[in-house]
Amino acid sequence: MATVAEILTFVETLAPRSMKMDWDNVGLLCGSRNTPVAKVLVALDPFEGVCREAAQWGAELIVTHHPMIFQPLKAITDETSIGRSIQLLCRSGISAINAHTNLDCAPGGVNDILAKKLGLSDIKVIHPDGTDAQGRPYGLLRSGEVEEQSLEAFLSLVKQNLNCPGLRYVDGGKPVHRVAVGGGSCAGGMQEALDAGCDTFVTADVKYNQFWDARDLGLNLIDAGHFYTENPVTEYLCEKLREAFPEVEIKISETHGDCMKFFG
Amino acid sequence: MATVAEILTFVETLAPRSMKMDWDNVGLLCGSRNTPVAKVLVALDPFEGVCREAAQWGAELIVTHHPMIFQPLKAITDETSIGRSIQLLCRSGISAINAHTNLDCAPGGVNDILAKKLGLSDIKVIHPDGTDAQGRPYGLLRSGEVEEQSLEAFLSLVKQNLNCPGLRYVDGGKPVHRVAVGGGSCAGGMQEALDAGCDTFVTADVKYNQFWDARDLGLNLIDAGHFYTENPVTEYLCEKLREAFPEVEIKISETHGDCMKFFG
Amino acid sequence: MATVAEILTFVETLAPRSMKMDWDNVGLLCGSRNTPVAKVLVALDPFEGVCREAAQWGAELIVTHHPMIFQPLKAITDETSIGRSIQLLCRSGISAINAHTNLDCAPGGVNDILAKKLGLSDIKVIHPDGTDAQGRPYGLLRSGEVEEQSLEAFLSLVKQNLNCPGLRYVDGGKPVHRVAVGGGSCAGGMQEALDAGCDTFVTADVKYNQFWDARDLGLNLIDAGHFYTENPVTEYLCEKLREAFPEVEIKISETHGDCMKFFG
Amino acid sequence: MATVAEILTFVETLAPRSMKMDWDNVGLLCGSRNTPVAKVLVALDPFEGVCREAAQWGAELIVTHHPMIFQPLKAITDETSIGRSIQLLCRSGISAINAHTNLDCAPGGVNDILAKKLGLSDIKVIHPDGTDAQGRPYGLLRSGEVEEQSLEAFLSLVKQNLNCPGLRYVDGGKPVHRVAVGGGSCAGGMQEALDAGCDTFVTADVKYNQFWDARDLGLNLIDAGHFYTENPVTEYLCEKLREAFPEVEIKISETHGDCMKFFG
Amino acid sequence: MATVAEILTFVETLAPRSMKMDWDNVGLLCGSRNTPVAKVLVALDPFEGVCREAAQWGAELIVTHHPMIFQPLKAITDETSIGRSIQLLCRSGISAINAHTNLDCAPGGVNDILAKKLGLSDIKVIHPDGTDAQGRPYGLLRSGEVEEQSLEAFLSLVKQNLNCPGLRYVDGGKPVHRVAVGGGSCAGGMQEALDAGCDTFVTADVKYNQFWDARDLGLNLIDAGHFYTENPVTEYLCEKLREAFPEVEIKISETHGDCMKFFG
Amino acid sequence: MATVAEILTFVETLAPRSMKMDWDNVGLLCGSRNTPVAKVLVALDPFEGVCREAAQWGAELIVTHHPMIFQPLKAITDETSIGRSIQLLCRSGISAINAHTNLDCAPGGVNDILAKKLGLSDIKVIHPDGTDAQGRPYGLLRSGEVEEQSLEAFLSLVKQNLNCPGLRYVDGGKPVHRVAVGGGSCAGGMQEALDAGCDTFVTADVKYNQFWDARDLGLNLIDAGHFYTENPVTEYLCEKLREAFPEVEIKISETHGDCMKFFG
Repeated sequence: MATVAEILTFVETLAPRSMKMDWDNVGLLCGSRNTPVAKVLVALDPFEGVCREAAQWGAELIVTHHPMIFQPLKAITDETSIGRSIQLLCRSGISAINAHTNLDCAPGGVNDILAKKLGLSDIKVIHPDGTDAQGRPYGLLRSGEVEEQSLEAFLSLVKQNLNCPGLRYVDGGKPVHRVAVGGGSCAGGMQEALDAGCDTFVTADVKYNQFWDARDLGLNLIDAGHFYTENPVTEYLCEKLREAFPEVEIKISETHGDCMKFFG
Repeated sequence: MATVAEILTFVETLAPRSMKMDWDNVGLLCGSRNTPVAKVLVALDPFEGVCREAAQWGAELIVTHHPMIFQPLKAITDETSIGRSIQLLCRSGISAINAHTNLDCAPGGVNDILAKKLGLSDIKVIHPDGTDAQGRPYGLLRSGEVEEQSLEAFLSLVKQNLNCPGLRYVDGGKPVHRVAVGGGSCAGGMQEALDAGCDTFVTADVKYNQFWDARDLGLNLIDAGHFYTENPVTEYLCEKLREAFPEVEIKISETHGDCMKFFG
Repeated sequence: MATVAEILTFVETLAPRSMKMDWDNVGLLCGSRNTPVAKVLVALDPFEGVCREAAQWGAELIVTHHPMIFQPLKAITDETSIGRSIQLLCRSGISAINAHTNLDCAPGGVNDILAKKLGLSDIKVIHPDGTDAQGRPYGLLRSGEVEEQSLEAFLSLVKQNLNCPGLRYVDGGKPVHRVAVGGGSCAGGMQEALDAGCDTFVTADVKYNQFWDARDLGLNLIDAGHFYTENPVTEYLCEKLREAFPEVEIKISETHGDCMKFFG
Repeated sequence: MATVAEILTFVETLAPRSMKMDWDNVGLLCGSRNTPVAKVLVALDPFEGVCREAAQWGAELIVTHHPMIFQPLKAITDETSIGRSIQLLCRSGISAINAHTNLDCAPGGVNDILAKKLGLSDIKVIHPDGTDAQGRPYGLLRSGEVEEQSLEAFLSLVKQNLNCPGLRYVDGGKPVHRVAVGGGSCAGGMQEALDAGCDTFVTADVKYNQFWDARDLGLNLIDAGHFYTENPVTEYLCEKLREAFPEVEIKISETHGDCMKFFG
Repeated sequence: MATVAEILTFVETLAPRSMKMDWDNVGLLCGSRNTPVAKVLVALDPFEGVCREAAQWGAELIVTHHPMIFQPLKAITDETSIGRSIQLLCRSGISAINAHTNLDCAPGGVNDILAKKLGLSDIKVIHPDGTDAQGRPYGLLRSGEVEEQSLEAFLSLVKQNLNCPGLRYVDGGKPVHRVAVGGGSCAGGMQEALDAGCDTFVTADVKYNQFWDARDLGLNLIDAGHFYTENPVTEYLCEKLREAFPEVEIKISETHGDCMKFFG
Repeated sequence: MATVAEILTFVETLAPRSMKMDWDNVGLLCGSRNTPVAKVLVALDPFEGVCREAAQWGAELIVTHHPMIFQPLKAITDETSIGRSIQLLCRSGISAINAHTNLDCAPGGVNDILAKKLGLSDIKVIHPDGTDAQGRPYGLLRSGEVEEQSLEAFLSLVKQNLNCPGLRYVDGGKPVHRVAVGGGSCAGGMQEALDAGCDTFVTADVKYNQFWDARDLGLNLIDAGHFYTENPVTEYLCEKLREAFPEVEIKISETHGDCMKFFG
């Protein structure tokens, strides 16, 4: 039977550790490399609800994008959500592995998925950090093209393709043609998007002053939500894992979704 | 005629310098204390549009909440929005003063205004930093009460009273009764809000993981927008300045609004 | 039935949190405050063997001096001893609490126990950090007197009373009369011991240059082992817990001892 | 007509940005790249008097060695000299560019000019930082030779050639033959001067302990004044700018000089 | 016979250790507290020439203002002046004590001496750091008055009273009436001097930009030399030591003077 | 006659400066390069007793492993052991040179000597830092083989070969075959020893938690004493110096030994 170690090795073929940011925490963060795995639950986050779903379903492994542990832990008690999650995993013999910024940067990863989901063509890595073993450039952001259209038209497309309940945006005063994408909190890459010739940038967790900066720079900036810009990668992980481990039962969490709602 | 210095002194009666955060930059950030003032433009931000409006209207002073200069400047050129703004003010002889975190914390300031705007009663300072000359407590956040109601009902109230185009929120699983408020980016104060017995927190610039933290803590967290939670203070400033300087023409910017839009 | 929370509260009556060093990690580091407790295992360290013993015995709580987690954790896997220990505790529903530098400093704690074990009289706190609720001084080191004797005679006494297999020491050139004690790694307090009029200092984990420093300062310095200088506190904890919780079964670990051996 | 951008590009041909120290601030620090330029005022410093002279003369640009902004600015008010200077430049539409440590280090720059002004032959860069596009070494200090002479004779030469009112010096006990030069505050380079075989070092802003260090090292150390050692570069800048922009009126400030005087 | 310890105790009555700056190094920096002392050499600096003079004269102690060791030493070899000095002192059994910033700040110390030497009346401590055992304020700078006079007249007075070969100064545009003094490198205290109502400041080691700052602030700033502003304290030390230790032979160094010369 | 400089040059042929750790202090730390040398005292440490022995014997040079000065010195008085040592060396005209971490790392140095002393075969550098001029790898730790034996048998061998009075150790649960060695405080290199395939590690100054870490890692860890693991290098230095300087009298200190004793 496949083990946690084998599945981790495979995930790190898709998203090599060497592509992660220095501050990141990725790989096997809870459990045991030797655990045999019959069921894998895939989700964007390893939050408490996901851990409970995995335990109820009888999974031996959860595979997520965000790490189980981000701030190193000084205690593991039931007073915190992370403490309860870890206690549950340990009690249930469930391991947790993740690929975070390595999966953001990897060819085919979070941001390539996002670019494709938006229907971009001529997809390129913005400011590549290097090339992988197959000579493909990797790095955080992607840019690509859509047929030139009004911002309003593109907003509809984003909302529909990412299936998100709402968008926040600023109008940079240009039609949409070349689009940068960065799933999650990538608004700090605005200048790089402009330098790469983009008129529009789709990302999330954008702050007040960043919307103003975008307007000053003449960049259409769209916050489509952290969850909606990154969650598509779970389908990709699911498919790849199923191909590689046909004997393992693999599914995307049925309970996890964005806890944040729009009221408008 | 009133001078910039006199108006600054008055503003710092409303919002004493001693109440500001260490890292903040407040007071006269551009211009001259001695300039006689006949017209004052009040706005949330000293952005380029506001500076242009002030120049066109013939104001000698702009009074804002956010500071003209936040990151200390290494150059003042027309290649940046801040550079163009400062050049315009200098060319037009316009001074710029502001009260930022001192106005957030001051009795009657940004957060008291926000609490009142939401119709809260029994308004208290959460974790006061001290008391002012009149013995009133001051500090960043406020809490207050509404008649117990569903979260949905309260969301309607917030949207209507702040006149904002949309809200982002997480449902903490409790009805709304005691509400904490912190205009702008105050989501870091979640635990303090809970410790003060609040079930609901209205603030802005909330990030993905903060929505999840709120849900884990059982707190209704509402992001009503940086602009909409803080802009009400401009009316307050305007009124107070008119009372104190009846001979000066004072108005709120007619062009400034949130550049961020909702698409939903 | 007693809960983890009640036992923790009691332990922190003996060793108040406020007496701990800034860098230390004490209290409930694993488990749940609400767990009912019928069996408590007491040990100097919460190492893997102790966790296993607790699980086999059916304890719901381990009470130790050293903390379960010292370096904050970035992963909890079975590749490390700490990871295996935490997994076992979580699986077995065992909580772990500790009192470390607060117990070193507390009146009646680690260093008072050590002083008594060595038969010192006129025991005083060296450089008190303050006084507790009952007005008793607290602080890290203790000094006390023995009848003046040769260093050799005192070495015999230390070895016998602490039941340790061997000692490392340097002869400071004086007979033994006033003795400072600091269980564990306290050799950095040498100068304080001298300032307090001591001729002899019993501690552990002494390094080469510290032995030479002691000789230069004319201080007899005795390394009696980290385990042997601190372990006596487990009896004290055991007794106090039994008095306070007569219905709970409490015992000292039967498997834990110093892993370090002498060959001489 | 020439623009600020064209003149800046030319200045940075003489003194490439890549030659500047990490901490330095050079280039266009105030104004606009697009301003057409008919008159340029050249000066060592962009101080208030120079700004006033530029405004009165009707210049659109000042070119200086020292930067307009050194400590990044938190306010631009008429309470400080720098604030008044910037307000005046903005009001008068005058841009300010500078080449500081890049001009110190560049071939032909501040220190080559100083070496020539002192009549040195066989001029070399001490400890070159690299070579420029034409293969010429660049770096901070220069050394060169004079016919061997007494220190007294050389002091006369320095005073006369730099036209300075007085010198401060220490006698290192050697005749003068190989001379290091570093305009401005370069006394920290004493050891490098010695390592390069120099017996004498001409620089400025020398402190008490540095004179003693020089004497201990057997180095004649001459403080000829920050202004007098660097100001000769203004003639060089003026000439080069006139050659490159024959249609622009270019002159050296007629009002700027050293504010420091000798009384002896 | 008096010992080094007794003389140090006396010096620290004049200049209590508690008055020194945090970064300073004062007291017994070389030698032995127990050495009996028949001859003391007093000098501003413990430089090599002074050490040689002490050895030749047969002194057992040198008392200086500046410390023997400022940068902590990693080696003591004859390749450096400080290494040679220490070797000579050790070889000759000479101890070295000093009072540096404690003597600058002490009532009656370096800056009171300097103020008196300039004939100031109504001498006050600028920004006192506290009061000494006798209730006298202490602190770095002093201010005092002269009969209002032209700057030129005051320059003559300074040069004559301090017996210095030359002065460097900037004209702040005011007549001289209230004068701040700070021996050595105190130009950083310019704003404090102005706040204390001074029109003129006498100090040393002034840099180019500090002269300009003073001019901008309207302050006459005079650099009278580090040596000439501080050396008068040696007479004071000599007198006080002679009074306290009449049986000890005490003299000021006959060889030490400023190594820096003027050429003008 | 040989000079200090010549002997230092030779020592740094054995242990090149470039091999030292960044934080280390090596070379000539006291005295003079030009001193002619007839007698050299070699010792592990330059402690006070060694300095006295050198003075009594009439040596002009001491050559040690540990540096004379480790913490840079702020004073050189007879109140500290290091102060008394330096005063004595200066008074007696004795120089002090040392090779510390450069000698630990050098081919043939401290750790090669230790490995040979233990009879290891197939000695290799663990994690080499580079190669020396002759192409030999250098670095801190060494590994080598003994015939497979019980830990008890190897403990006897260590005690006998290093002639040490006692050992402290933890049993890692494996027989002894491949052994890592690091004289002095090298327990931090445990993981490297394991990565290099070692079952056993001989070093010194091991702390309580390090013994436990070793046990968890399945590594036999032996603390044979700082002195006993490093002192063998003195014989090596002595021999090499005698070969190179046959006319100089060279001996190992007859008084220096470990001040620490075992009582067991």
